[in-house]
Amino acid sequence: MRALVWNGEALRIVPDYPQPKPPVGEALIQVLMAGICNTDIEITRGYLGFTGILGHEFVGTVTEINDDDQSWIGKRVVGDINCACAQTDCVYCNQDLGRHCSQRTTLGIVNRDGCFAEYLTLPVRNLHEVPAAVSTRMATFTEPLAAGFEILEQIHIASTDKVLIVGDGKLGLLINHALTTTGAAITQVGKHPHKLALAQANGCETVLLDAKTQSRLAQQFDVVIEATGSAGGFNFSLACTRPRGKLILKSTIAASHSIDLTPLVVNEITVIGSRCGLFSPALSYLASGAELTPLVSHVFPFEQSIQAFTVAKTKGELKVLLDFSSSDQSSSE
Amino acid sequence: MRALVWNGEALRIVPDYPQPKPPVGEALIQVLMAGICNTDIEITRGYLGFTGILGHEFVGTVTEINDDDQSWIGKRVVGDINCACAQTDCVYCNQDLGRHCSQRTTLGIVNRDGCFAEYLTLPVRNLHEVPAAVSTRMATFTEPLAAGFEILEQIHIASTDKVLIVGDGKLGLLINHALTTTGAAITQVGKHPHKLALAQANGCETVLLDAKTQSRLAQQFDVVIEATGSAGGFNFSLACTRPRGKLILKSTIAASHSIDLTPLVVNEITVIGSRCGLFSPALSYLASGAELTPLVSHVFPFEQSIQAFTVAKTKGELKVLLDFSSSDQSSSE
Repeated sequence: MRALVWNGEALRIVPDYPQPKPPVGEALIQVLMAGICNTDIEITRGYLGFTGILGHEFVGTVTEINDDDQSWIGKRVVGDINCACAQTDCVYCNQDLGRHCSQRTTLGIVNRDGCFAEYLTLPVRNLHEVPAAVSTRMATFTEPLAAGFEILEQIHIASTDKVLIVGDGKLGLLINHALTTTGAAITQVGKHPHKLALAQANGCETVLLDAKTQSRLAQQFDVVIEATGSAGGFNFSLACTRPRGKLILKSTIAASHSIDLTPLVVNEITVIGSRCGLFSPALSYLASGAELTPLVSHVFPFEQSIQAFTVAKTKGELKVLLDFSSSDQSSSE
Repeated sequence: MRALVWNGEALRIVPDYPQPKPPVGEALIQVLMAGICNTDIEITRGYLGFTGILGHEFVGTVTEINDDDQSWIGKRVVGDINCACAQTDCVYCNQDLGRHCSQRTTLGIVNRDGCFAEYLTLPVRNLHEVPAAVSTRMATFTEPLAAGFEILEQIHIASTDKVLIVGDGKLGLLINHALTTTGAAITQVGKHPHKLALAQANGCETVLLDAKTQSRLAQQFDVVIEATGSAGGFNFSLACTRPRGKLILKSTIAASHSIDLTPLVVNEITVIGSRCGLFSPALSYLASGAELTPLVSHVFPFEQSIQAFTVAKTKGELKVLLDFSSSDQSSSE
């Protein structure tokens, strides 16, 4: 099968990558569409040292099940990217926190080939059927949107809270969608007027970053979400958080920050790391008719995925999708 | 009066510093004993840019009240170091969080002369009478012990939690005292066998730091308290916190850290800055007969306070106290 492979030095389309066989308990899934995430880009900069097929945001069709329950075959699915041990004596799996299981592999990120290929395998227990009301294109947002909803699994945001989302990239805008469900007053700060316009269309205040923004927003917010994907975002976000407020960190980047932790201690701020989320709230939100189409910058056929990566790295772009249905997939299996 | 003054460049005893007059609502307090804190030492390294009389840990006797209620006169007191606006429209003062009031001054730290002098003033509402059962020497621990108890105001520690205190300095050992009240299993890690012995005497496990400690303790603890007062402590503490665990930061130091925030995000760790606490739990603990005498390294008469500072900065020392009663105080007023 064709697959987009990162070998630690270069990204290339491998035309004859061996098609995976699902182990017991797993499904073989034919990929319909996939999304490029900043984490994929960070991996090509050395993040986590992963090599193999990249990609973890996908929608696909189940073509084979190595398990008793064959009812999944033919269904359109998305899948949790963390493959946990699911053992009864695992402290994390026991609490529905398989995404923290120490034995886990992670699709396209840790010890498991990803979804930028014609086929992938995932445990059947990771699968979620995509509701008929949700298009394949919208369903590719399930995983990153779930990461936005993860914030609401971790903390309570009251409708009276003042919330700031720092960063107007695709993750920041998906977080915007998730947090509008709280009814809180949301402000989004970023560098791109055309992206901020999407937050504005979602009913939020927006602030275009300039030299005075930090002092103007200093200590103004009960909850601040750092979603810039850049090393500078932390210090800015910390400055905007009120004493005893909460700062949620969503960026995973392959770099150390120079951080003065004093304001964190003096203002007794709570900083909460936040990563992958559960798929159900995201699928429910998508099924409710949420309109994320403006978040798609480009859709490339899979054979142009190298070019798609280059575009995805370009400042100002939003989500770049890879479409596996728009080319002849049988030719290279 | 005599006072120990930091002028931004040097520390010196000023023999004829003007004795303060209490404004309306404030008390004049004659200092009996005071403790040197790491924050005092950090200020002499540039922390917060404070100049004036240093010191915020004290026990004293009320000698004058500029207010209706004269019943405080003659009482032995300790005092909250944060002097808040106490206005009804202050969002922090309204919630008993005067220690976060944006208008606050802080004894010997921000815009208010401290307690390394024969007299100080504080608002009457900041005062707490020292119970008769608590010696003056023990009562000097009220403020730093309250900082330890502050952790229990911020998070719940269950008796089933595994807790690690990183650092065996005076703050780390006072935190040890505060957290033993939870019944949780506490491990203290540090560099000084004679200090760790105090934690051990308190019923805790101890670990002497070596090159393998971090990998051995990696992700082992539900709650980790960073109390090293050093830039390296954060990364070590983060590594010891289990996924979804809590890391409490107590160190205030005048330096930036180089920090890789990725483990914080990937493991969804909650980092909570923690500073000053309420005095009541600390005074109750002291009144219950807690034995903190081994935490006192030295007691110097006030006239030797420069020397006392040098000793307090020496690695391996614990609390250094200044005794105002052991010299002739009337001579210099």
